[in-house]
Amino acid sequence: MNNTFEPLSPPPRRLMGPGPVDVDPRVLQAMALPLLGQFDPRFTEYMNEVMALYRQVFRTSNRWTLLVDGTARAGIEAVLASVLVPGDRVLVPIFGRFGHLLCEVARRCRADVVAVETEWGTVFDPQRIEDAVKRHRPKLVAVVQGDTSTTMAQPLDAIGRICREHDALIYVDATASVAGMPLETDAWRLDAVSAGLQKCLSGPPGIAPLTFNERVEAVVRARKHVEQGIRPEDYEEGAGRIIQSNYFDLSMLMDYWSESRLNHHTEATSMLYAARECARLALAEGLENRFERHARASRAMTAGLRAMGLALFGDQAHKMPNVTGVYIPEGVPGDGVRQALLDDFGLEIGTSFGPLHGRIWRIGTMGYGCRRDNVMTCLAALEVTLRRFGHACAPGAGVEAALAAWDAEESGAGAND
Amino acid sequence: MNNTFEPLSPPPRRLMGPGPVDVDPRVLQAMALPLLGQFDPRFTEYMNEVMALYRQVFRTSNRWTLLVDGTARAGIEAVLASVLVPGDRVLVPIFGRFGHLLCEVARRCRADVVAVETEWGTVFDPQRIEDAVKRHRPKLVAVVQGDTSTTMAQPLDAIGRICREHDALIYVDATASVAGMPLETDAWRLDAVSAGLQKCLSGPPGIAPLTFNERVEAVVRARKHVEQGIRPEDYEEGAGRIIQSNYFDLSMLMDYWSESRLNHHTEATSMLYAARECARLALAEGLENRFERHARASRAMTAGLRAMGLALFGDQAHKMPNVTGVYIPEGVPGDGVRQALLDDFGLEIGTSFGPLHGRIWRIGTMGYGCRRDNVMTCLAALEVTLRRFGHACAPGAGVEAALAAWDAEESGAGAND
Repeated sequence: MNNTFEPLSPPPRRLMGPGPVDVDPRVLQAMALPLLGQFDPRFTEYMNEVMALYRQVFRTSNRWTLLVDGTARAGIEAVLASVLVPGDRVLVPIFGRFGHLLCEVARRCRADVVAVETEWGTVFDPQRIEDAVKRHRPKLVAVVQGDTSTTMAQPLDAIGRICREHDALIYVDATASVAGMPLETDAWRLDAVSAGLQKCLSGPPGIAPLTFNERVEAVVRARKHVEQGIRPEDYEEGAGRIIQSNYFDLSMLMDYWSESRLNHHTEATSMLYAARECARLALAEGLENRFERHARASRAMTAGLRAMGLALFGDQAHKMPNVTGVYIPEGVPGDGVRQALLDDFGLEIGTSFGPLHGRIWRIGTMGYGCRRDNVMTCLAALEVTLRRFGHACAPGAGVEAALAAWDAEESGAGAND
Repeated sequence: MNNTFEPLSPPPRRLMGPGPVDVDPRVLQAMALPLLGQFDPRFTEYMNEVMALYRQVFRTSNRWTLLVDGTARAGIEAVLASVLVPGDRVLVPIFGRFGHLLCEVARRCRADVVAVETEWGTVFDPQRIEDAVKRHRPKLVAVVQGDTSTTMAQPLDAIGRICREHDALIYVDATASVAGMPLETDAWRLDAVSAGLQKCLSGPPGIAPLTFNERVEAVVRARKHVEQGIRPEDYEEGAGRIIQSNYFDLSMLMDYWSESRLNHHTEATSMLYAARECARLALAEGLENRFERHARASRAMTAGLRAMGLALFGDQAHKMPNVTGVYIPEGVPGDGVRQALLDDFGLEIGTSFGPLHGRIWRIGTMGYGCRRDNVMTCLAALEVTLRRFGHACAPGAGVEAALAAWDAEESGAGAND
């Protein structure tokens, strides 16, 4: 007898971890739309619209702005595997777990990886990066914009300038930061940027928007090889060393996403619908408005946590607005509190990785979940739960402080967000 | 001013190409459900249920039955990149485009690829495979079960036995065949099998179910390396050569899908929901019933096409039941007919790749789209359209023959499918 289980019935949740977070209901609806064939004229039009939308999200005029069909780390690997030839030197400034990931992926491309590290909870002074670039002369600098593992955001404007001056390429993993804080691909001279949907874009994980400029294009094109068995007349052998992945070969993705529409994979239709709707909603709100909403939620959340007597993690001047690290109070079981929040309030906050495991919680206020009601609900639930675990907080202080901070920036006394 | 485009509004379509095909509405609804955190107990339960469901779909007891977050070719690359070390010999029997793809991916793993080819429209006699295995002593035989490019299905039972006898591993790409025709992972001694959702499972492209046994597990485990920056105590260096992809490293996916739940990517939540619902619906129908439905649609479609005076492509004894190749009649513009079917009937049929381009159309009857009404609508629309392009068919003959064939197998005279 087959065991087929019941239909899906996910319990109600308020996802306030470091991602994935609650998806905008309009994005969920987009995914429920019927499919189109991959070469249907309407579908290829949607592909072109996705390119146009993400150019705006990434603030770039790069022609090559497209999707990789996989989670955010698929976007990372697509860039690194397509750019790096064995032996190429890569400089990775590490300020959290996802810096380690960039090293890991680059090493598997057999690159010569040079890592520079800064303490978790801090970011790099650009001078340190410039010194490292001068010393090591990397082909590529690979860096995370916002690393949710530490809640830190690395300023990139100066680093982009440094890389261009020293003729290094720079690739940025903006998965956790895109659409939640400023990211200026062209103005900051970033050569390649990749992202995911599941943070401030309010979509599900599973597809990775990315963009790259003509400097990256030149590297990739030199490595182009076309599959046999599709169109014999298109078969060609590039002069450069073949890219070690078929799936992540950006030169093939360029063919698929351009007028030639040379078949590679079959585009993940429903996830493309989601990606299109995520970008559309972000741009309809306006990126600046969206950034301000995230900044406001961050001010409110941090004010609330402080008013509860909790200590914030990391250099607050460089904290990402969409995620907040807070120390677990002495004597309080971190996982017990998280479980109680989930069981009693349907509210999820995040644990931590590596050196921060067991020391901090991470609370996300991202995209659709970046809302006044979420901030207040989280603080109220956390206060009650901490008290039940024996950690006293001044009653109501967290929510009071958060409300004051949320409303402080408004012109007038309105509380009607 | 931002250009944000209109909300999605895909035109109504009847997708009868070689895939993707129409998604079952219940699968579309599953994708519209709210997300859960990736370590939410309910979500990890869903992951376990997905494993149990796909064990039944693949007809295996393999513990390692999981999803790769990418389209079907991501599943292919995950297996090949995780198993193949540079220099390993791989034998690929090619009987269509997707055999070339297996070669392509294996070459990028720097394997020593030996290809044997048979004419498009035919399959291999197992003796030829046995001779090649004896001569070349491959570590791995990689073969497609059903290649939509030629509509052929390669019998695998004997080939599985041959590989086991000669101590070669066998990997099967069952993307186009799974849930549409018999596939016996364990009984046929297949060591690894991967698939996609977008054919007979009636889901969207974008996630790849796969299974592998302890023979493959042993190869993969010897190559295990754990990322730095997650849990220091889990860090280990495998004795084997590191897998060249982080994203496709099956040893890391095993950790993520097992009790240890060591974070790798963030599971593509909505696509996992889709995968779960696809398998659930297939098993609720019953695999045998589903195979019979596909076989019946194939008999009806081929009878109808023949009655219209059209010639079928390839060895009909080995045709896949879910896709039919039919020659484009002399003097008829193949793409013009396809465009008219799309414009006038909202009906999509497929073009062809490589040597068959411009010679045949491919008509899919897969999964949710494998229905009596689809077969009849397609034949009626094709008849009318061919006539408009100057190719006469006996009026109504196609539908009459298809109806007769559809109903022929029923006990009694019922036409109530």
